[in-house]
Amino acid sequence: MKQSQTLIPTLREVPADADIKSHQLLLRAGFIRQNASGIYSFLPLGKKVLQKVEAIIREEMDEAGGVEVLMPALQPAELWETTGRWGTYGPELMRLTDRHNRSFALGATHEEIITSLLRDEVNSYKKLPLTLYQIQSKFRDEKRPRFGLLRGREFLMKDAYSFHSNKESLDEAYEKLMQAYSNIFRRCGLDFRAVQADSGAIGGKDNHEFMVLSEIGEDTIAFSDASDYAANLEMAAVTTSYPEQAHSGKDMTAVDTPDQKTITEVAAFLNVAASDVVKSMLFIADEKPVLVLIRGDHEVNEIKVKRALNAKVVELATHEETSTYLAAAAGSIGPVGVSEDITIIADHAVKSMGDLIIGANKEGVHYKHAKLNRDFSISQFEDLRFVVEGDPSPDGNGTIQFAKGIEVGHVFKLGTVYSEPLNATVLDENGRATPMIMGCYGIGVSRTVAAIAEQFNDDKGLTWPVNIAPYDLHVIAVNMKDELQSQVAEELYKLLKDYRYQVLLDNRPERAGVKFADSDLIGLPVRITVGKRASEGIVEVKIRKTGEVHEVQKEELTDKLQDIFRQLSNI
Amino acid sequence: MKQSQTLIPTLREVPADADIKSHQLLLRAGFIRQNASGIYSFLPLGKKVLQKVEAIIREEMDEAGGVEVLMPALQPAELWETTGRWGTYGPELMRLTDRHNRSFALGATHEEIITSLLRDEVNSYKKLPLTLYQIQSKFRDEKRPRFGLLRGREFLMKDAYSFHSNKESLDEAYEKLMQAYSNIFRRCGLDFRAVQADSGAIGGKDNHEFMVLSEIGEDTIAFSDASDYAANLEMAAVTTSYPEQAHSGKDMTAVDTPDQKTITEVAAFLNVAASDVVKSMLFIADEKPVLVLIRGDHEVNEIKVKRALNAKVVELATHEETSTYLAAAAGSIGPVGVSEDITIIADHAVKSMGDLIIGANKEGVHYKHAKLNRDFSISQFEDLRFVVEGDPSPDGNGTIQFAKGIEVGHVFKLGTVYSEPLNATVLDENGRATPMIMGCYGIGVSRTVAAIAEQFNDDKGLTWPVNIAPYDLHVIAVNMKDELQSQVAEELYKLLKDYRYQVLLDNRPERAGVKFADSDLIGLPVRITVGKRASEGIVEVKIRKTGEVHEVQKEELTDKLQDIFRQLSNI
Repeated sequence: MKQSQTLIPTLREVPADADIKSHQLLLRAGFIRQNASGIYSFLPLGKKVLQKVEAIIREEMDEAGGVEVLMPALQPAELWETTGRWGTYGPELMRLTDRHNRSFALGATHEEIITSLLRDEVNSYKKLPLTLYQIQSKFRDEKRPRFGLLRGREFLMKDAYSFHSNKESLDEAYEKLMQAYSNIFRRCGLDFRAVQADSGAIGGKDNHEFMVLSEIGEDTIAFSDASDYAANLEMAAVTTSYPEQAHSGKDMTAVDTPDQKTITEVAAFLNVAASDVVKSMLFIADEKPVLVLIRGDHEVNEIKVKRALNAKVVELATHEETSTYLAAAAGSIGPVGVSEDITIIADHAVKSMGDLIIGANKEGVHYKHAKLNRDFSISQFEDLRFVVEGDPSPDGNGTIQFAKGIEVGHVFKLGTVYSEPLNATVLDENGRATPMIMGCYGIGVSRTVAAIAEQFNDDKGLTWPVNIAPYDLHVIAVNMKDELQSQVAEELYKLLKDYRYQVLLDNRPERAGVKFADSDLIGLPVRITVGKRASEGIVEVKIRKTGEVHEVQKEELTDKLQDIFRQLSNI
Repeated sequence: MKQSQTLIPTLREVPADADIKSHQLLLRAGFIRQNASGIYSFLPLGKKVLQKVEAIIREEMDEAGGVEVLMPALQPAELWETTGRWGTYGPELMRLTDRHNRSFALGATHEEIITSLLRDEVNSYKKLPLTLYQIQSKFRDEKRPRFGLLRGREFLMKDAYSFHSNKESLDEAYEKLMQAYSNIFRRCGLDFRAVQADSGAIGGKDNHEFMVLSEIGEDTIAFSDASDYAANLEMAAVTTSYPEQAHSGKDMTAVDTPDQKTITEVAAFLNVAASDVVKSMLFIADEKPVLVLIRGDHEVNEIKVKRALNAKVVELATHEETSTYLAAAAGSIGPVGVSEDITIIADHAVKSMGDLIIGANKEGVHYKHAKLNRDFSISQFEDLRFVVEGDPSPDGNGTIQFAKGIEVGHVFKLGTVYSEPLNATVLDENGRATPMIMGCYGIGVSRTVAAIAEQFNDDKGLTWPVNIAPYDLHVIAVNMKDELQSQVAEELYKLLKDYRYQVLLDNRPERAGVKFADSDLIGLPVRITVGKRASEGIVEVKIRKTGEVHEVQKEELTDKLQDIFRQLSNI
């Protein structure tokens, strides 16, 4: 492609509203432009990169047994009403009415559409399993669109749905798709982790997020420094065994702790460590009161509390609720003498503590020397706290570290949460109708492009990995007015295209400095500069990522490039 | 692809609501399914066909100098307000508001978006010309969605826009794109014509429609039987010279024609041919009355009237308007003695008529022996009538015939109708700001798929051309329970894939009759049947389109297929 024939509007200045590197550089290098908040056009280079990512996704999805389809963006409201999501999805789901006043959702996701399709077209377990996928623009009216392509309102997504007649078949597809996703993100050059995650709004149980490690990520990942264990912070299990501390044998004693509300305040007031104090928190779980005890230096993880109680809804008790169930406000509450109506559960760490400092259920009073199973008892010990850096990895290998991540993929075992309401059943081996068991698998395609840009850049611009770069080579004549230079550049452009390289030729009548700056900004893997030494048959080959420069005889150029690309593909 | 692993839900019955062949067969062969009126899902085979058409489009667009981009479906209302189309586009434009109550159009076309993009990014004539295109789902809320993919509400479209600093550059791009379009539709195997057309709602002047010839087409094409001249019926010029008829010399005489309103009635009543009578029609053109005369056997073409008068709006006068300007109702009006405020224009054919029979502007009265330039005069002679079959072709070669056509492509010279209101200017050679000159170029991608299906079918099903078929080959084992047959079928499947054929293997445990019927319905170019003679190393090769059957030794299969595909590609 000749640069005169395409549109690459580079910018020298950092756009004011772009906070992160990928957003700044994709704008500055002329890959994208904003049309409205969270809504972008992909300019020629941006479209090329998208297509590179799409091609990798298609190959790996096909390899994993997926079959491509294309479903509509306009989805009848009735389907969403059947699954209840017309109501529950909220303002993120964009809606419109047609000229006959019928309501439609603008596809944010396609579970309803595909499940109703399979309901109508597949009736026997013999026709399963099936994995269908599509690559398509999706619409979600984000409250705060931000970070360019990372959180947009219209974005390109690969969504896949698998259908099964039994759980083993789902497990098998899930494994295959996990592998496909790893291949995809590896081929995109990304540093990523597959992390155990909570499933959010879509429903279902087992699920993993594919997280690209990045400081600007909005999620925290807990990962092992010695294995591939990784989990979303909310999900990471704590398997520490705590050293047993003996009890002093002293009686439980009330001490005044006037106005000391937080653990930090109480510990300082009593001149002890936070880890010597027990934090008591009252929750309402499915309308019943539950007192949760946790070591003072730990943080309670509500998702774990919910799971431990097998509850649908868990919320911290309000001031009024706390007063109703206990004789004090939060800050002075504790497990001693509470009514039998209140379940008390505690984190494992509490079991190993010796003399406990706990709230006395009396305003501004705590107990010292409290002893478990003497002064109060616990109905359940569970893993209830957030993991912290330094905890042992739950898989037994290494210790936990934290990193920020950008979610680029998500795989779920949905089970029958959609097939049941939509009545999507197949006849099983015994001729009985049974709901199809489903999995769903998403990749944010445009977000992946941003994540790559976020990991591949330096102070001069983008540094695309070979598989993803919009072109392989940037050919530049230093001075287009020099007849020999421009002729050699044209000649190399044709030659290298014949060698199957994707080549961008900067044939613009711009100053050399402008061309070099634009070239660095755009970030193709290799630049070939035709300058003064063209008269000696010598051109310059520069590797964008490393800055490495080679002077090469024209005749040896293709051999040299073969070496370089072999090397770059191995990085 | 193994059929067990994909979704091809064939139907034996013709679906009740499908009126035309392509719709029926795309449904029956499992290529598409309807989600709502005018809204479809592309199942795996349908998606493959779409991708084949898309790939051809991309190749030819790139060859013609186009560069691919991707613009959003969500378009801010403000842009459409600037060009006035927010108001004029009507209910076909789907609209919605976001969570902040901002209005958006759902992309029906992208002139506003791309013109504003170019306005912001291109400022000098040196950066033009540019041709940008995208392939994307479009949304138009058709009043009567029908004929499956032919007239849908959400459909896949390739839209392209070219930008120029002068008209010659636009002409050049237009020619290139015309050629690209011809290549695209030829490679799709279609019988089509590029026809001169009226530009409809988008605006602009020069434009051509690409029409696939088909009885179910909604447009009538007038084309030469001896050249490539073709025009939309509304646009086809009439260049007949008419034999001069001498006037009898008799005086103009009034005759009573009581209750004879139409030309047919008047001619029969007076016992003359319709071609001896002049039809007079009163129009209101930009609020002024214009009397249009045409030979009785011809039909007036309002588009030609509008063009002849260079008027913005032309409408037939109402009963009241006719009474105001003339002393009679339509049926008895004519050019004699009318006020000078009324412009009189006539079709060329009227000039050559001898004794004229014309309305007398008196209820139930006509004149006989009226003579042009004696009894009345005409300010302009123009081509004002519809072409009819048998007229000479305007390019001088052959005679005009009619055919019905499906519009699959449309190219326009837009000029500055979008760049002016959107203020998209470039600086010209003299540093003066001048609006960019634009062309726009559309292809209905999903509609093209339907048009191909409409031209390629027989009583058994679809008969895809080689370039478009979802797979090249259908391999079928007559009896999957026969170990040898299923083994040979698998073996050929692998072998042929290694030979770069796209192969569909019917490995379903179905009866042979079902498999053959499905295979004919799906319509891949060549079927390879592994049956009883597999034990002798012989398989059957059948060409779908011709029904031709060859018994082939396994070892000779790839050579035979090479011959067959070479032959099929030449058809």
